[in-house]
Amino acid sequence: MKLTGKVLVAQGGGPTAVINQSLVGAVLESRKFPQVTKVYGAINGVNGIINENFIDLTQETTHNLEQIAVTPSSALRSTRDKPDEKYCLAIFEMLQAHEIRYFFYIGGNDSADTVRIVNAYAEKSDYEFRAIHIPKTIDNDLLVNDHTPGYGSAAKFVAQAFTGADLDNRSLPGVYIGVVMGRTAGFLTAAASLAQKYHDDGPHLIYLPERVFSLEQFLIDVAAVYDKHGRCVVAVSEGISDESGTPVAATLTPTVEKDAHGNLNLSGGALGDLLANFVKKKLGVKRVRSDTFGYLQRSFPLAVSSVDQNEAREVGEKAAQFAIWYDADGSVTIHRTGDYSVDYRLTPLDQVARHTKSMPPEFINSKGNYVTDAFKNYARPLVGSLPSIAHLRAPEIPRIVRR
Amino acid sequence: MKLTGKVLVAQGGGPTAVINQSLVGAVLESRKFPQVTKVYGAINGVNGIINENFIDLTQETTHNLEQIAVTPSSALRSTRDKPDEKYCLAIFEMLQAHEIRYFFYIGGNDSADTVRIVNAYAEKSDYEFRAIHIPKTIDNDLLVNDHTPGYGSAAKFVAQAFTGADLDNRSLPGVYIGVVMGRTAGFLTAAASLAQKYHDDGPHLIYLPERVFSLEQFLIDVAAVYDKHGRCVVAVSEGISDESGTPVAATLTPTVEKDAHGNLNLSGGALGDLLANFVKKKLGVKRVRSDTFGYLQRSFPLAVSSVDQNEAREVGEKAAQFAIWYDADGSVTIHRTGDYSVDYRLTPLDQVARHTKSMPPEFINSKGNYVTDAFKNYARPLVGSLPSIAHLRAPEIPRIVRR
Repeated sequence: MKLTGKVLVAQGGGPTAVINQSLVGAVLESRKFPQVTKVYGAINGVNGIINENFIDLTQETTHNLEQIAVTPSSALRSTRDKPDEKYCLAIFEMLQAHEIRYFFYIGGNDSADTVRIVNAYAEKSDYEFRAIHIPKTIDNDLLVNDHTPGYGSAAKFVAQAFTGADLDNRSLPGVYIGVVMGRTAGFLTAAASLAQKYHDDGPHLIYLPERVFSLEQFLIDVAAVYDKHGRCVVAVSEGISDESGTPVAATLTPTVEKDAHGNLNLSGGALGDLLANFVKKKLGVKRVRSDTFGYLQRSFPLAVSSVDQNEAREVGEKAAQFAIWYDADGSVTIHRTGDYSVDYRLTPLDQVARHTKSMPPEFINSKGNYVTDAFKNYARPLVGSLPSIAHLRAPEIPRIVRR
Repeated sequence: MKLTGKVLVAQGGGPTAVINQSLVGAVLESRKFPQVTKVYGAINGVNGIINENFIDLTQETTHNLEQIAVTPSSALRSTRDKPDEKYCLAIFEMLQAHEIRYFFYIGGNDSADTVRIVNAYAEKSDYEFRAIHIPKTIDNDLLVNDHTPGYGSAAKFVAQAFTGADLDNRSLPGVYIGVVMGRTAGFLTAAASLAQKYHDDGPHLIYLPERVFSLEQFLIDVAAVYDKHGRCVVAVSEGISDESGTPVAATLTPTVEKDAHGNLNLSGGALGDLLANFVKKKLGVKRVRSDTFGYLQRSFPLAVSSVDQNEAREVGEKAAQFAIWYDADGSVTIHRTGDYSVDYRLTPLDQVARHTKSMPPEFINSKGNYVTDAFKNYARPLVGSLPSIAHLRAPEIPRIVRR
């Protein structure tokens, strides 16, 4: 028997450039089924559920939904709430009150865990209910998945930012340090390498949170590249830490400010600025610059990967199909089936929830300061097509004055 | 009689996303003329001239030149050298030694001045010589010109960065501050407004170096927007200063570091971080974030304006035409002849050299915290087409639990 009732879709955690594709995929697919009486959206993720902030997506036009699909960031808005058991019970009770029979939550591993707990309450209460987690995260750190929607577009931004920064650094040489998001997983920082074309294109060094960061080794590495190329472009993850696990920004800050809770106050541009000053002082390089890519990298409208966009749409659609055709619960996961092709499966929620994954050792070089070809082969299909850049190769004119 | 001899092209100052279009326009157009015996390129601008670092662009393939044209940043590399009279004499002597008869220098107002002085030496020496300045600058601050090549693409980046940041801020509300390049002219910061669509789209406040910045008024402005929308997106120019002309970052830094020359050491992300901490402390807003767009805004490959690209190509072509068809010296300038159309003229170098322009009063609102429609009408054609974003407009569901 078909389960008749309402669908609720929500978005949680940090936005991505393609998270609305998943929303629109789930909504449009759900609207096709006669047993779906309404499609609701929760405003501000789980926070909107417990506060009963719902909108009726059955009354959105298809055109506006398609416009939403190509709009970055979470159209239903998001939340940083991480529900505990009690919070999840409140979610379940509100869903029950509105006779929600299908719940689709787009988010990372925390969101998967919320879906898991809410679903457990439904099972305990014998309330007929289907709950699906739809994956998204620019960090690409979800278990089971080959990769996650949102990563490809953020990776495209980072790759292109380094193409531009490298060309800039070529024309006015010095040391350039770009700080990329990713506190524990280095996939996004590693993407700095993806648009390289010529052998001397930067970034020349890539530092990931998966490896211990040593300031001494960093200086030696930068000096070696600078000696060779007369310039050096570096990608560092915001999450790099020393042997003791202390964030590098903290070890470099002369007077470490702590807030009321004893947390380090490491503001946005701090790590990049501190590393740049450190290189300037220690190596005596005149032109040292840094940028912190910050929020630009996860919602820049012009850096959307077509592959990422399509897949984000498909995981949303598959969520509706798994729940409504198959009466199943779980997390939609992406599996690579060729070079390049993927398929979608439904994975038990507890296999995706809570834990995260990092860059596997075969993606990082032995010195821990760059990525391997294995990483590039893995990640290149995910960013879609990139514009091609070129360098001049005209011959030098023999000197007649300053011989 | 046609002046027979070599052409030399060079690029100076900060790179732009389209500066190579001007290079390629000048090179390909010059190569058509039989009286042009060779087309040289100087590596590293004027620095490459006095050091005799030339390459033979006559031997570049057309295909590679077209690839170069769509590559951001200066393919001939650049320099921060600002030649004085003696330096300009050395330039002239090197040009004479290589029998350069046509000199095209792509750059800002300093570059125009260099062209002017070098040309004066040629005239004094009765050396037959044509010198043309080709405009470029992301700051859009060249005199006589309606606007300058490089601005439209940087403006497109800034407009899209704020679209993304605003969508991000919508989904996770708080105060967001984006710091944009431009020490004395606010055109690029003003571009933050260009992709706004809905009435409540950010940025809600824009602070330009053309107006005195008051921290007190800034707090009042931010608080008012936050009260109204529950969030606030702000664009500030890196050049904002207080009544005494002191940079805002300096007034906010508790202990101001000075370097050996007594200059303030205001590192990359400092202004944004300081403003964010200030707002957090004074207004008690929990989520306050800032980004400093830095070098991304001038060479991001995916944010090139098609209009800017075409015009940058044309000013390069026109330089060759003015010099070779008309035996004229000067600066190629852009003039608006319709909405939207432009034409190119040759302007005496001393009218473009040295001085810069700022945002005219009619482009800034009376409160000094936003731009006018006049600015938007002026700037919108320059950024080319922008992707359209959308917001949901589905009706709210009546509450049944929390009434």
